[in-house]
This record gives sequence, structure tokens and C-alpha cells, in this order.
Amino acid sequence: MTDPVGLGGLESTEVGSSALTDVRGTEGKLFYRGYEADELSRTRGWEETALLLWEGELPDSARREELRSRLERRRALLEPAAESVRSIPASATPMEALRSGLSLLGQGWDYPPTEEQYETILAFPPVFLSALQRHRQGKEPLRNEPPGLAQAAAYLWRLTGREPSEAARRALEAYLVLVADHGMNASTFVARCVLSTWSDAASAVSAAVGSLKGPLHGGAPSLVADFFDEVPSPERAGEFVDARLARGERLMGFGHRVYRGEDPRARRLHEIAREVADPRRLAVAEAVEREGLRALRERHPERPWGLNVEFYASLVMEGAGLPRELFPPTFALARTAGWVANLREQESRNQLVRPRVRYVGPAPRPVPPPAD
Amino acid sequence: MTDPVGLGGLESTEVGSSALTDVRGTEGKLFYRGYEADELSRTRGWEETALLLWEGELPDSARREELRSRLERRRALLEPAAESVRSIPASATPMEALRSGLSLLGQGWDYPPTEEQYETILAFPPVFLSALQRHRQGKEPLRNEPPGLAQAAAYLWRLTGREPSEAARRALEAYLVLVADHGMNASTFVARCVLSTWSDAASAVSAAVGSLKGPLHGGAPSLVADFFDEVPSPERAGEFVDARLARGERLMGFGHRVYRGEDPRARRLHEIAREVADPRRLAVAEAVEREGLRALRERHPERPWGLNVEFYASLVMEGAGLPRELFPPTFALARTAGWVANLREQESRNQLVRPRVRYVGPAPRPVPPPAD
Repeated sequence: MTDPVGLGGLESTEVGSSALTDVRGTEGKLFYRGYEADELSRTRGWEETALLLWEGELPDSARREELRSRLERRRALLEPAAESVRSIPASATPMEALRSGLSLLGQGWDYPPTEEQYETILAFPPVFLSALQRHRQGKEPLRNEPPGLAQAAAYLWRLTGREPSEAARRALEAYLVLVADHGMNASTFVARCVLSTWSDAASAVSAAVGSLKGPLHGGAPSLVADFFDEVPSPERAGEFVDARLARGERLMGFGHRVYRGEDPRARRLHEIAREVADPRRLAVAEAVEREGLRALRERHPERPWGLNVEFYASLVMEGAGLPRELFPPTFALARTAGWVANLREQESRNQLVRPRVRYVGPAPRPVPPPAD
Repeated sequence: MTDPVGLGGLESTEVGSSALTDVRGTEGKLFYRGYEADELSRTRGWEETALLLWEGELPDSARREELRSRLERRRALLEPAAESVRSIPASATPMEALRSGLSLLGQGWDYPPTEEQYETILAFPPVFLSALQRHRQGKEPLRNEPPGLAQAAAYLWRLTGREPSEAARRALEAYLVLVADHGMNASTFVARCVLSTWSDAASAVSAAVGSLKGPLHGGAPSLVADFFDEVPSPERAGEFVDARLARGERLMGFGHRVYRGEDPRARRLHEIAREVADPRRLAVAEAVEREGLRALRERHPERPWGLNVEFYASLVMEGAGLPRELFPPTFALARTAGWVANLREQESRNQLVRPRVRYVGPAPRPVPPPAD
């Protein structure tokens, strides 16, 4: 058996069509329904982005406020469900906990998903993740969220019981907008494939979280922050970068399957990091960026190197006051908008996904009689 | 937006290659590593089939006994983990419970999966599903399984505390062999896609269960049994079949994406059903088969109608003494052998699955200023 086996990366396989997100890898641009994500992140919030993705147009202020207040009410209703943090083993990472929490949440859910179920998927992560974090600190979950908060602010409030600073709130809001959706990435593709069997939305989104967990997808932003910890000063960034590559380790936060140069989200997150990050951390990060690109280009000049979204995301989440272990599930929290948009779109032409695979194993042969 | 959106069924898209299972849709044949599944189910058990799928060859009796005893030991070790049935809401179907149970089981699991993790995935369903069933009957889970049982017998024992009859055990064993793997079906494809991000085996298999749950994939065998309940006698099968189709409802257990005629597993399961099923139920099923094929061919003569695996699977599981609500997760229990075989194979050439999608949405446009 010398033929290679396994799935291909499907880089050039077109699996369907979508009117949601246009990822222009060569130009380094990202559009949601025709609007540049970078531009949206300057004036619009995550709830508006979710509505844009679902409905095709930016909402007016009444529609935006309607979703905001529905999610606010839903967060309060989900507080009992978030008690499931008590049944999550202490050894679980928050990403594993969120995968289980979503699975435990969806009981008796069928196909097609209901509006209420989609809303529940959006509202659950801030309630669950904050309850988990506080449970692990020996604290009770917070209730009676101050009225009027959108998800970003509500999430920060539920973690600490304090209204976040305007800078922290704006930074997190912009991050949530920038990563709300991203074409047919692995977790989104998995969510759609799960729905294609007429399974339910909790199965689809829990599977998506399990997929986003992998370090080749969404599991890396906390690893980027870990690397910044290792670098003692901007001046020594080159040395640490080279040593890591010499050990054959991957440099986290660089390179992307689709963008041939800079990831537009990385550029914008850098801008936001300049507003909220600790200046020393920022100087280290900028030196790692410079030295990382230099070192990678020396080693693989044929590849188009650039930062990916995870690099400055780590500084932005840090600056917004999030603990490092919540970086990956905060990515998931943002992406629920995109997953739900993709599931809604999938519903419109849902059919069982069952691809072909080339069989390269042994030819038919008779079963030998059992030895005993 | 008039372009169709959504994933295609990918019927003619080749997503990779595999040396595991050869599904010959036109001939109506199914081979594991070159051996016909029908033939294997006559002389070999599920543990041997799992080893065949993983290692490429049928095991000798020492290797088979080694896996059997490792799974036996692992089942005993997993008894505390199956206590998680207490945190599963009573409203959860057993399939939803298994999805959550597998997610709660895999804590701190990384890529690549370990042998121990793969074994754990195999050994968990009989322990968990039996504990769940007994918990719902107000009974304690059984411990101290009699020594020497293979998975099929151990599962039946753990449900009742009685050694199953030889006919029941053989019927379930043959069923587990027949559905142990089936090419790049939706749940197997999902499991591989999840692993492709360097996520872990629990994420992959929990996602697969969430996908198998859909009625277009593995969720149907209990629906078939429900339909047999409705038909009062073999003589009235035609009338009930016609009424169902006239109401626009799907006839469960008929038709398959890949097999153009009879599903070879259906033929073999019919044989097994003749040995274990209640004769009255069998007569009803045979009448529904005859009348269903007649009615479907009348309505869609252009399609190649045949039974699929779920039709007689329902009678075989009934005959083996399984309660109806456990039919879908018993399918999952059998399929863990194939999912693990597919994950092992995927590891050998694992790369991030990120397919292309055709963007058919609006062209770039400027973001309007917020209304307020």
C-alpha cells in the first residue's frame, strides 16, 4: 500500500456557493455581503454584523436594538443552563468546556433549527464562559447584568462585574466584528456538513467548536501570547525567533491558507492593539513581527509570508482584559455569528454531503476460515 | 440574489483516497480491506473487523484476544466516567447524550490521538449507553461484567445483567460488523475534517455522532420500527405505504445515495432478522418491503429503488433485545471502529481541510454612516 491516503486540503475544490463572505486572498481583502470587514469594524458592532450576515443588509437602528435586547433577555434566560459548568471536569480547557456546554444545551433540537435555537447559540457563550471562569476562581456566576449592554460589553461585565472601559469594549467589539465570519474555513464547513444530515444546530455548532479548537485553525492566539512572554525585550526578538525555527517549531501567527500576503484583519488588529495593548508588549510583538517575517522569508522565500489574524488578536484580547485561556473560546463566541449565518444559508439548499473517495486498498479476496 | 447558495452534495467530488472500505454502489457490494462485509459477518466478530480496518489484515487469535481483553479492561476503567449520565438532562435523546458524553470524556486530549484515546472511544459507548438506559429506569449501572465478553455481548450484559442468548449475541455481533465502516459518509467525513485542524479524537468523534444523528444519515432505524408499529397486518401494508406517500412523507429504510440497487447490508440483515425477529413483525416488514418498492417504483420509475441498511437493522436490533431508543446510538457504537480507522488513516497525511466556495453575493460597496 504505497498510495497516499487521507483527505486532500481541498484548496482548489469548490464545494458550493455562498452570498455571505468574500475572502479575496490575493488582494488581502475581506468583505461581508460586500462591505469591507475593516471598514465595518470602525463604525458597526457585532450585533449589526450578525444581522448583515443573516439578512444581507445592515439593520436600521430599530432592528439592531431588537436583536440586542433579544440577546440580552436570552442571556438572562440561559443563566440556569450555564450551571452545566459544574459538570465540566476541572481538567477541561475552556474550549473543551464550550464544546460540551453547547452539546448539553441542545436537547431535543431538531431540523430545521428554530430562530430561538439560533439566538440561544449566540447568547450562550458569554454566559457560559464567564460562569466557567468564575467557577474556576471559586466565585459564583454574576446575574442581573446592567441593562442596555451588547454582547461584547456584556461578556466583559459577566467576567468581572464591572463595566468595561470604553477602550476595552471598543477593542473587543472590533475584534468580534473582524472574525465574525471567514468563508468556508474548516469549522464552518464542518457545521454545514453536520446540518446536511438534517441534524440540529447544537450538533453543528458543537462540532464547529471542536474543529476550531485545533491549532491549525483557532487554537493559536494564546500560543502567540505565550511566545511574546518568552521574548525578554524587542531587541532579542530575532534571536528567539531564530531559535524557535531552528528547533523545528512553528512560528504562531504567521501565514494563512488563503491570504497570499497580509491578512487584512491582522493590519486592523495591529491598529487596535496600538490603542489598548501594554506598550512594552506591543514593542515586543512588533519586533517579533519584523523578525519573524525576516526569518521566514530567508527560509522559504518562495512563500508569500504575512501575519495572520491570531498575531495581534492576542494583544487586543489581552488589552481588552480577557484572560489568556479565554482567547480561543472568545474567537468561537465571535464566530457564532458566522456559523449561524452559514447554517441559515445552508438550510436554503440543504442536501446530504457525501463526497467520493478513491479506493486504493486491496482487491477483493476471500475471507480465510477463522484459526480457532 | 437568485443564485443558489449552499453546499452541494459532493456526489462526484473526490476528496481524497482511502485504503479502508470499498463501497461498490453499482454492484451492490461492500468490502473492508478487500473482504466482503457480508462474508465477514458470518465468521468474524466486531473486534476482528476493527483490527482489520486499522491494520489492513485480519488478526490472528492472539491479537484478537489482546484487543478484546484491552477493551474489557477499558470498559471497567470507564465506569466512573459514565457517571456523567447524571449530568445529562432527562430531555436528551440517547444520541444527544452520547454526543455530550464523548465531549465530556475527552479533556486535555491533543493531536495526534494516542492509542489509549482510540481505545477509550471504542470502549465508552457500551458503558455509557447502558448506564444511561439504567439511570432512566431508576437503576444503578452494572459493574463486574463477567470475564471474557466481547463488546457486543458486554453491551447486552450491561443493559440487563443477564448473559444474552446466543442468537441475540450473534445477531448484534453481525450487525456491528456490517455497519462498522462505510466509506466517506457524512459523519466519517466530518470526523476527518475536525482532525484536520490538529484537533483531538474526542472532538472528531463527538462531531461524528452529532452528524450521524440526522435522519438522512443514522437517525432513521427507530423511525422504521415506528412505521412497522403502525401497520396492523401484512395484508394492509400496501394501504399504509400508499397513505404515507400520499401525505408527502418519506418512507424510511428505502433508497441510498451510493447503492443503485439493493444495499448488501440490507440483504444480510434480512437473513439475520429471519433468525431473531418476532415472526409477526418479520411478516409485516416483508410486506412493507414489497409494497414500498412497488409504490416507490410506480411513483419514480426512473430511480433505482432498494432497501437501505436501516430497514432490517431495526428488526435485528429489536430481536437482539435492544430498546428502540438505543437503535441510533448502537449504530454509533458499531461505527466507532470505522471512525477510528478513518482518523488513523487521516493522521498519515493530515492537512487542514479548507475548501473553496463560489462567492455569489453583492459586489464591494461602501459602508453607510450609522443612522444614529
